[in-house]
Amino acid sequence: MLNRVRSAVAHLVSSGGAPPPRPKSPDQPNATSALPVTPPEAPRSPAKAGSGGAAPAKTAEARASFSRPTFLQLSPGGLRRADDHAGRTVQSPPDTGRRLPWRTGYAEVINAGKSRHNEDQACCEVVYVEGRRSVSGAPREPSSGQGLCFYYWGLFDGHAGGGAAEMASKLLHRHIREQLKDLVEILQDPSPPPLCLPSTSGTPGSLDPSHLVGPQSCFPSQKEVTHDSLVVGAIENAFQLMDEQMARERHGHQVEGGCCALVVVYLLGKVYVANAGDSRAIIVRNGEIIPMSREFTPETERQRLQLLGFLKPELLGGEFTHLEFPRRVQPKELGQRMLYRDQNMTGWAYKKIELEDLRFPLVCGEGKKARVMATIGVTRGLGDHNLKVCTSSLPIKPFLSCFPEVQVYDLTQYEHCPDDVLVLGTDGLWDVTSDCEVAATVDRVLSTYEPNDPSRYTALAQALVLGARGTPRDRGWRLPNNKLGSGDDISVFIIPLGGPGSYS
Amino acid sequence: MLNRVRSAVAHLVSSGGAPPPRPKSPDQPNATSALPVTPPEAPRSPAKAGSGGAAPAKTAEARASFSRPTFLQLSPGGLRRADDHAGRTVQSPPDTGRRLPWRTGYAEVINAGKSRHNEDQACCEVVYVEGRRSVSGAPREPSSGQGLCFYYWGLFDGHAGGGAAEMASKLLHRHIREQLKDLVEILQDPSPPPLCLPSTSGTPGSLDPSHLVGPQSCFPSQKEVTHDSLVVGAIENAFQLMDEQMARERHGHQVEGGCCALVVVYLLGKVYVANAGDSRAIIVRNGEIIPMSREFTPETERQRLQLLGFLKPELLGGEFTHLEFPRRVQPKELGQRMLYRDQNMTGWAYKKIELEDLRFPLVCGEGKKARVMATIGVTRGLGDHNLKVCTSSLPIKPFLSCFPEVQVYDLTQYEHCPDDVLVLGTDGLWDVTSDCEVAATVDRVLSTYEPNDPSRYTALAQALVLGARGTPRDRGWRLPNNKLGSGDDISVFIIPLGGPGSYS
Repeated sequence: MLNRVRSAVAHLVSSGGAPPPRPKSPDQPNATSALPVTPPEAPRSPAKAGSGGAAPAKTAEARASFSRPTFLQLSPGGLRRADDHAGRTVQSPPDTGRRLPWRTGYAEVINAGKSRHNEDQACCEVVYVEGRRSVSGAPREPSSGQGLCFYYWGLFDGHAGGGAAEMASKLLHRHIREQLKDLVEILQDPSPPPLCLPSTSGTPGSLDPSHLVGPQSCFPSQKEVTHDSLVVGAIENAFQLMDEQMARERHGHQVEGGCCALVVVYLLGKVYVANAGDSRAIIVRNGEIIPMSREFTPETERQRLQLLGFLKPELLGGEFTHLEFPRRVQPKELGQRMLYRDQNMTGWAYKKIELEDLRFPLVCGEGKKARVMATIGVTRGLGDHNLKVCTSSLPIKPFLSCFPEVQVYDLTQYEHCPDDVLVLGTDGLWDVTSDCEVAATVDRVLSTYEPNDPSRYTALAQALVLGARGTPRDRGWRLPNNKLGSGDDISVFIIPLGGPGSYS
Repeated sequence: MLNRVRSAVAHLVSSGGAPPPRPKSPDQPNATSALPVTPPEAPRSPAKAGSGGAAPAKTAEARASFSRPTFLQLSPGGLRRADDHAGRTVQSPPDTGRRLPWRTGYAEVINAGKSRHNEDQACCEVVYVEGRRSVSGAPREPSSGQGLCFYYWGLFDGHAGGGAAEMASKLLHRHIREQLKDLVEILQDPSPPPLCLPSTSGTPGSLDPSHLVGPQSCFPSQKEVTHDSLVVGAIENAFQLMDEQMARERHGHQVEGGCCALVVVYLLGKVYVANAGDSRAIIVRNGEIIPMSREFTPETERQRLQLLGFLKPELLGGEFTHLEFPRRVQPKELGQRMLYRDQNMTGWAYKKIELEDLRFPLVCGEGKKARVMATIGVTRGLGDHNLKVCTSSLPIKPFLSCFPEVQVYDLTQYEHCPDDVLVLGTDGLWDVTSDCEVAATVDRVLSTYEPNDPSRYTALAQALVLGARGTPRDRGWRLPNNKLGSGDDISVFIIPLGGPGSYS
């Protein structure tokens, strides 16, 4: 993410100290052993000698190590090429060997030098969920029902370091699996989900069927909750638990910075697109564009941020004002009237400038230059627990939300052809490519491949990444129209909506 | 508004006491003399003898007086018919005499008995705005420029009393006029609005042209503010000032209850539709439906309400939980797991029931039965300063917003025909009539009238009101399909988009 966090790296609070908690079970996503294979970074300040199995301090060399998605199957040489800012080779899974699930296409390219490594990360998995227990609360018999499989795709666009993106790419789907464990039976039962379940420590003695749907009392009605909304809730909570894990483990592990997260879950006929940040997902179906996400930036979330600053002024630390002005107010303008808007307004009005209006605005700037507290350009995502205001030690995390917005697409409601795709891209793609241009590339590339050619979706992903990167010319990466291409990391997933081979 | 406030009337805090502040200027909307012609209600508790020109106490008879929009030109007999719950005669401006501006159509009908009087109010005016001063701050010469005219329509759907709706119908447009006074020159100048103006007390000596657009300092950019957004800001602030006036004057005047407000301003080629509550505006253009407002209810604003309860738990008074459950939690369910969602979630998940989850949910119920604090069914509007929770004295006003959402429609971007209309209706219309049914009625009624027939838009308003009211049959007001018609007050404006006679 290009310049998303201004000078924030330099202001990350360094940490030494206590070893991470020991894992309780290797199956738990919050178990330390489930962390990325990359060795944890040594604390930046001199560390006290840890006990209880803390990872040994690494050399500067090891600290600079980086990883790319395992599914790229990169050799050491390939890894070097993937890390080369000058060549900017587009990387995709090899034609040979194991392909990505669901015939998924993928391509990525490193930035033009804005950060040392590619801070985007990606994950594509098929995840099996075994039910934790039966709905009745009785311990689950191995034979008492089928588990569930979900397909999973995740794009993570890191900023101020690659640690958060890498951790999320390794663990977020495990958090989703954990959240779904309780729902395995419920989601496969066509009747409406029970509103109330026995306690997790429930013994057969506590089982009272009347508990499952209790009396309505004075409540005006009983709300019907859909199966979809349980999956949405599971994904939302998984994002939060992932974020909490980053907070807990940031001192012991290499969890620098933060990341945007764009995640797709396919489960029981439906596609759930969860977005927290400024990546984007669109469906291109029969040439038509269906937006599947919204971006969360200081501009789109201005009113939420301002309301928080208004209700909790202590979060502004006396340095910021929750009001927005079209430009910085000058001391000599005291007493004059300037345009402003507050948390309730979408329009502008004039107000008399008072002393506290001279503080820096919580939200300022436009477009890619919009910032919260003059520092960060995205307002949702994972991590950033150590992020401080450039010029002070005021924490920014309270203004950031780790919650995604989830959109649901019913794959069974439409007969999809092989050229119908879901396109996921980090902002490196979308900064220089419109939805319509993506749709045109979808049409152009897929029409040159046979519907069953297994390489067509990767070819499409590569075309999109190349089209956004451009070619080196006139001291820059330039598009055919001579405008600058994206100097950011660019990552693209192409998910064919026909499903895994359903139109073969 | 049918049952929008449950038992709230009974819980309004009665007030006696001090006389209202004396007006400072008859032109100010907050001047007491600008209040409705209806005599102020006597205090409900024995009043101390007021001094300083307080209105004399009225008898119970006078207290029960009510008013309908002046433009209906109702005779005493007409007023009685308009107040008759049994006959429910549809009221419209008379065919003779002065017509409504802009060939506007209007019709209304009283409720079927849910409240003593019709608590809807309406206003339709042409308002002249004289500039307050020149942009440079110099006192304005009478000849130094043209004032501005705006067309104005307002529908106000009262609850828990008719006072707030009546006050808003008499005064809100004056607040809008006040807010526009500073903008008269700016809106007529095609150059972008100045970001900064000299102080209101500015003397020629303080005038420094460099103040109008100051240096950009470290701000990343200077935001461009459009003329439209100044009008939006003026309307937003006018709503807030109207609400504040109600708060100030509620003790001295008949400002019971609250009201939804749906307001349309036509100014310099654009239509601004401002909505706070659950009234609705749609454009029907060449048969196509263009929504021009959103409804604000406990369901649509759930997350805003929950966030406020979460950030300011003192507002919940230990009686409510900010969490939502699909039904009321029972004490015997302690320790079990129930579906819930919090301020961050759109999906549902299970949580273990704890003691504080037994509190009543801040938001509960569905559809027309959804409530904030078990009391009120709309979350935006004016007034309600005395509204308390049914079962306690906890104030509800902190959860209500007086700010409208404003949508802008550029009338010059499309050549409108005489059958293109903007339809405004209180929820009495929309509860039983879909957008599509309204569009069908628009087509059916207008096609039977000549394009220049001055009565066509009132005929359309009448048809819509009649269609929503139904006819008395089987002990109820019933629609042709035998479903129940609306027992609520119903009010409808029809605004032809061709403008005032532009297609004559």
